[in-house]
Amino acid sequence: MSYVLVSYESKTGNTKQMAEAVSDGVKDAGVDVKLKAVEDVSIDDMLNAAGIIVGTYTSYGIVAGKTKDLFDRSVKIHGKLKGKVGGAFASSGKLGGGNEATVLTIIQMLLVHGMIVQGDSSSPHFGAVAIGKPDAPSLKGCQSLGKRVAQLVKALNL
Amino acid sequence: MSYVLVSYESKTGNTKQMAEAVSDGVKDAGVDVKLKAVEDVSIDDMLNAAGIIVGTYTSYGIVAGKTKDLFDRSVKIHGKLKGKVGGAFASSGKLGGGNEATVLTIIQMLLVHGMIVQGDSSSPHFGAVAIGKPDAPSLKGCQSLGKRVAQLVKALNL
Amino acid sequence: MSYVLVSYESKTGNTKQMAEAVSDGVKDAGVDVKLKAVEDVSIDDMLNAAGIIVGTYTSYGIVAGKTKDLFDRSVKIHGKLKGKVGGAFASSGKLGGGNEATVLTIIQMLLVHGMIVQGDSSSPHFGAVAIGKPDAPSLKGCQSLGKRVAQLVKALNL
Amino acid sequence: MSYVLVSYESKTGNTKQMAEAVSDGVKDAGVDVKLKAVEDVSIDDMLNAAGIIVGTYTSYGIVAGKTKDLFDRSVKIHGKLKGKVGGAFASSGKLGGGNEATVLTIIQMLLVHGMIVQGDSSSPHFGAVAIGKPDAPSLKGCQSLGKRVAQLVKALNL
Repeated sequence: MSYVLVSYESKTGNTKQMAEAVSDGVKDAGVDVKLKAVEDVSIDDMLNAAGIIVGTYTSYGIVAGKTKDLFDRSVKIHGKLKGKVGGAFASSGKLGGGNEATVLTIIQMLLVHGMIVQGDSSSPHFGAVAIGKPDAPSLKGCQSLGKRVAQLVKALNL
Repeated sequence: MSYVLVSYESKTGNTKQMAEAVSDGVKDAGVDVKLKAVEDVSIDDMLNAAGIIVGTYTSYGIVAGKTKDLFDRSVKIHGKLKGKVGGAFASSGKLGGGNEATVLTIIQMLLVHGMIVQGDSSSPHFGAVAIGKPDAPSLKGCQSLGKRVAQLVKALNL
Repeated sequence: MSYVLVSYESKTGNTKQMAEAVSDGVKDAGVDVKLKAVEDVSIDDMLNAAGIIVGTYTSYGIVAGKTKDLFDRSVKIHGKLKGKVGGAFASSGKLGGGNEATVLTIIQMLLVHGMIVQGDSSSPHFGAVAIGKPDAPSLKGCQSLGKRVAQLVKALNL
Repeated sequence: MSYVLVSYESKTGNTKQMAEAVSDGVKDAGVDVKLKAVEDVSIDDMLNAAGIIVGTYTSYGIVAGKTKDLFDRSVKIHGKLKGKVGGAFASSGKLGGGNEATVLTIIQMLLVHGMIVQGDSSSPHFGAVAIGKPDAPSLKGCQSLGKRVAQLVKALNL
């Protein structure tokens, strides 16, 4: 039974709240979800997932450290995530604080794994973003992200 | 009958040569291809394609102007490319000349259209790249890109 | 007498309003400013400036077309902007609409010219950004950008 | 007496060799250099430097983990690196392997610290890059990077 892994690295709870909304989106599309703080994510969690959605707070304009470390360790299964669906979300304290830039660095990591990423023709385009505590439009963006990934997982029969 | 559009913007012929190798990869995977210089690409060519692979020479570290203009004009069909498969390639005169950065800006444009992009777990990861006249490994990267996009088009029944 | 060129590409007036605030920041730091819509910017305006700050609305997640075209044409003076100070700003309609990504592509273009770019340890980090009509914090970010570029122009005796 | 810190994260020795060439460039410009593997870099090394040049091997298309961790820990001195000069270099195993993308993520981290980064109007534009064992042109790019940072340190009297 396929599932989408939602991994989050949160400091203040904002990114965690985004992760929960992303998970809701996955479930709404009829796909199982495994929601985990990044420190609890195992390489097997990644290996067995049909889709992987990764979120972090913004740290120096790119992905935060524990999530970077997870990807560095995932080199052990390099090539085996090929063809899985990926997605990204990020929060920052303020506008222009790096959330979009962070989403793009996560997408780069997913693409290096040979994964499949879909944008959204409505904002947020690259992945879900929030400024501080996610407001209603940001949470809606998170749900859309989860739904989009889940639908692509289903379309690809993963 | 679905096809993949390969659009290229070439100044010296190098990017054009890459485009031809990308097209070969699409055909090898059993999908029709429409290969066009960017000035000959119509909005309808984009609209009717199942996949769109875009290549340019590197110009100030990002996508070249005519290709940018094509995307600016494609706002007329914004939302209608959603769910199509995209890919990117770029050449630069020298190493560190911006080809990777250019590929990433093309991917950003594709994602804003709601398109689907897959990376490669082998290099080149984000899209195909070449330094000057494409050598054998670069042409192989172009073929892989074409093949990857075509296979995803087929997997999604586009 | 040295001046900072502020070039803007605006569709709705939002980016223009940002440009005016950027210009105020330059003047507050005691440096002359030349504020122009991108279609009025000449290559000589770039060549004679001590600093160049470039802003656009977000178009497919990167810099808008007329500004891209200006940089493509600036190849005529390639190498001659080396050592000048640069800066970037961008607006998008919504959060996650690409403003940060656009600022980063403008910075890439400035760096390819051999120009000097400074970030801000406070948000907005890379350049000034706004969502829709710029609010007070966004305008303050614009002024900070103008001031930062002007101060660097003075520190370098440009 | 001011110095430029050159921090490198190397797995195979290629990035280390780049770091040595970067250091040579700094010294050739008449500025002292402190060359250290990233695990030996202290926050005080960063704090007391006039310039910081950061290099890593490419790991999942962005900066490698120990270097990311150094920046995460540098939050303790956030704001105090403002106005220092920064630079970036990266190696990858193959063309299209992410070296340029990695340089750009390092630049993002430097800009969030409020640091000053200069591009090069000749390739490599954003920072120095190498494919595998750095060849002569790559080493020359490293030296140019070191020299450029050192000259900017001097021009700013840091």
